[in-house]
Amino acid sequence: MHTIPELQKIIEQEINQLQYPKNPKELYEPITYLMQLGGKRLRPALVLMATDLFGGEIKKAIPAALAIETFHNFTLMHDDIMDKAPLRRGKQTVHVKWSESVAILSGDVMFVEAFKLMIQVEANILPQVLNVFNNTAVGVCEGQQIDMNFETSTEVSIADYLEMIRLKTAVLLGGALKIGALIGNSSVTDADKLYDFGVNLGIAFQLQDDILDVYGDPEKFGKQVGGDILANKKTFLLIKAKALASENQLNELNYWLNITDINHPEKVKAVTHIFNDLAIKSIAEKEMQAYAQLGLENLLSINLEDERKITLKAFAESLISREN
Amino acid sequence: MHTIPELQKIIEQEINQLQYPKNPKELYEPITYLMQLGGKRLRPALVLMATDLFGGEIKKAIPAALAIETFHNFTLMHDDIMDKAPLRRGKQTVHVKWSESVAILSGDVMFVEAFKLMIQVEANILPQVLNVFNNTAVGVCEGQQIDMNFETSTEVSIADYLEMIRLKTAVLLGGALKIGALIGNSSVTDADKLYDFGVNLGIAFQLQDDILDVYGDPEKFGKQVGGDILANKKTFLLIKAKALASENQLNELNYWLNITDINHPEKVKAVTHIFNDLAIKSIAEKEMQAYAQLGLENLLSINLEDERKITLKAFAESLISREN
Repeated sequence: MHTIPELQKIIEQEINQLQYPKNPKELYEPITYLMQLGGKRLRPALVLMATDLFGGEIKKAIPAALAIETFHNFTLMHDDIMDKAPLRRGKQTVHVKWSESVAILSGDVMFVEAFKLMIQVEANILPQVLNVFNNTAVGVCEGQQIDMNFETSTEVSIADYLEMIRLKTAVLLGGALKIGALIGNSSVTDADKLYDFGVNLGIAFQLQDDILDVYGDPEKFGKQVGGDILANKKTFLLIKAKALASENQLNELNYWLNITDINHPEKVKAVTHIFNDLAIKSIAEKEMQAYAQLGLENLLSINLEDERKITLKAFAESLISREN
Repeated sequence: MHTIPELQKIIEQEINQLQYPKNPKELYEPITYLMQLGGKRLRPALVLMATDLFGGEIKKAIPAALAIETFHNFTLMHDDIMDKAPLRRGKQTVHVKWSESVAILSGDVMFVEAFKLMIQVEANILPQVLNVFNNTAVGVCEGQQIDMNFETSTEVSIADYLEMIRLKTAVLLGGALKIGALIGNSSVTDADKLYDFGVNLGIAFQLQDDILDVYGDPEKFGKQVGGDILANKKTFLLIKAKALASENQLNELNYWLNITDINHPEKVKAVTHIFNDLAIKSIAEKEMQAYAQLGLENLLSINLEDERKITLKAFAESLISREN
């Protein structure tokens, strides 16, 4: 079996070797630009780890791993237009650096590139793999739409929120793992268990993101701490706080939510103070741990020796205890 | 074999039966809206005709035909954003009726729906079919980018233009036919010949579009005659006119091209007058006929009795002699 750093090295090398046509350059330069911005390479690593878990050849899973990373970056390119995001990983987003039209069309062709990579899996599993990939892609789009709808909806419940992050974030982790498992010749039952592991891990991963956005160490987090609070983003923390707040606390929370100045200096401190009074951090951590636990149970139920599962287990634990 | 009206009836019925999830409605309502706006249904008809040509079962080709029409409409949804088009077939475009974000994301999910339909072909031809589909999709995106680049480039040659319409319009006709042929169990050689037929027919089809935009009968054309002239669109007619114009004619042409008033009442008349003096209409018609002829030769070279080819031949002739 391969270690995580080994797999990550393979992925970086393969991404650096991806080649696109020279022309039209407006179509292909943004793809290389975005793919080379870095990132955790979490999703392609999961594909390879899943293949490895079942004793499959890593080499066979590389095109699918690249397909998943290409698809993920395609969704980022389009999401950044919709979210009017100026920066991605500290660099200009594609629609700012080029134009909105370029970001739409380059994203579209990137989606096709993802399919071109994915259909390189062996013919005997191609229908199954594409089925997982298509369903995953639909889920991610639905999650993004629900997330955008949250911006204008006044009532978002914890259940709504968990369903949104399941679709927007978690199904892609599940899909990456399931595709890797199929390439590793797992049984369908085990591939489904690994999918569930990925979905539960993905929900835990996003909850950790929400927590870090408020409680992260500014020196380690890599983004502005409090960004979600300033943007009034309906995260697990805010939704839970509104549900638990006393009348006074709710009034104070609403006072700050009505301040639309994205740079207000007091807002992060004041809202965090309310979160602290309501012990929101530990509630969110408990929720995250519960999903992580569910995921670990899915992993343990897979019909393999425990020893083989060590890498994925360690990877899962590193994701939910990360600081950036 | 089936008649063209029979095939078109099947396609309309199948499109009307396409069902999408209810929620999120911003994602799925625009798909139904755009798919139901009508149109010639040319591309799905070509899929079915190709399957029929080789004696295949029409029924087996229906999901692929719907995939091609769904893909085509996805490109229209995104192109309309990039082109800032307010209307499509006389109705509001999706980005105007809903929003740009909705048109981006609903288009993305529509692309996935196209793949979901396409992977319903039989497993033994799935890799080949997806290969054609992916290459076609890349071509269409490249063609759209090149077309957008034309807006700001000062020198566009006839060769550049023909390459652009080959990609933007013609490869999808070729791809639709090739996929239909593969479903009909044609040989790869014959499928390739039918692809070439489709590409040549597609170029002729677009040249006829350019001609109709200037010389169409306003009562039959269905769009504003002269629209391309008012928008300074670099069509075959304009590029050819600039290449053949005397110094005086070129000065006059440039005078009108510098008038950016999209509603200028004299512009269409004046530019058409220059086209007439240069006999541009008959030059364009000759070019169109030459591509149509090439296409017919591709069709004739296919290893089947001539009798089987009558429907496709008649369909090709109707496309290039159409008045709308």
